[in-house]
Amino acid sequence: MTTLDPAIAGRLKRNPDGLVPAVVQQHDTGEVLMLGWMDDEALARTLTTGRATYWSRSRQEYWLKGETSGHVQWVKEVRLDCDGDTILVKVDQVGAACHTGDRTCFDADLLSGADRPGPDARG
Amino acid sequence: MTTLDPAIAGRLKRNPDGLVPAVVQQHDTGEVLMLGWMDDEALARTLTTGRATYWSRSRQEYWLKGETSGHVQWVKEVRLDCDGDTILVKVDQVGAACHTGDRTCFDADLLSGADRPGPDARG
Repeated sequence: MTTLDPAIAGRLKRNPDGLVPAVVQQHDTGEVLMLGWMDDEALARTLTTGRATYWSRSRQEYWLKGETSGHVQWVKEVRLDCDGDTILVKVDQVGAACHTGDRTCFDADLLSGADRPGPDARG
Repeated sequence: MTTLDPAIAGRLKRNPDGLVPAVVQQHDTGEVLMLGWMDDEALARTLTTGRATYWSRSRQEYWLKGETSGHVQWVKEVRLDCDGDTILVKVDQVGAACHTGDRTCFDADLLSGADRPGPDARG
């Protein structure tokens, strides 16, 4: 069913849907671009093709990032976390990572931080 | 039950357990430190106290990061992604983020990348 290296598959801890969250980071600037989800096959394709591939939970199909938009993610490095339940994918992002056209999926909605006027902000 | 701002709560998309993944990033270096999980209350505490708080899925309790280890995460910025189902927390990490003592939870397990000897590596 999948071409994933059994030594890697044995370390993965999947959620009840068989998926693992993948944090996607621009390799040189360190920007966190988005969070995707991978099953074993998506991870195998990401590792072997060098292009980030996810499982689309909304469309229920494999999603080769940039296939329609051209906003490809070239894979530079893939890491697994200490307990095997999160993947970190460092990529070179072509164009916008976000479907809104923003560079990252986190650009638009600041909940708290230095740039956000607090309750005491004036003027 | 929770003190989370209703305007924020209304934008959150939670998994069946009521949780949202939180990508945790060192604010100045850009290192991705770990992935945690937050429910509404954990996010509310993170926003109001300025110290990152998660829901521990293994212990089934709130987890004030650093409470026992001293490895506190001081919150610099909190963002929500474009579809409201991932949080990005930029922090100032005291000491190691990982329970193994590594700086990040992604230090130890490289699946693919420039530093990993490929099948053609010799010597």
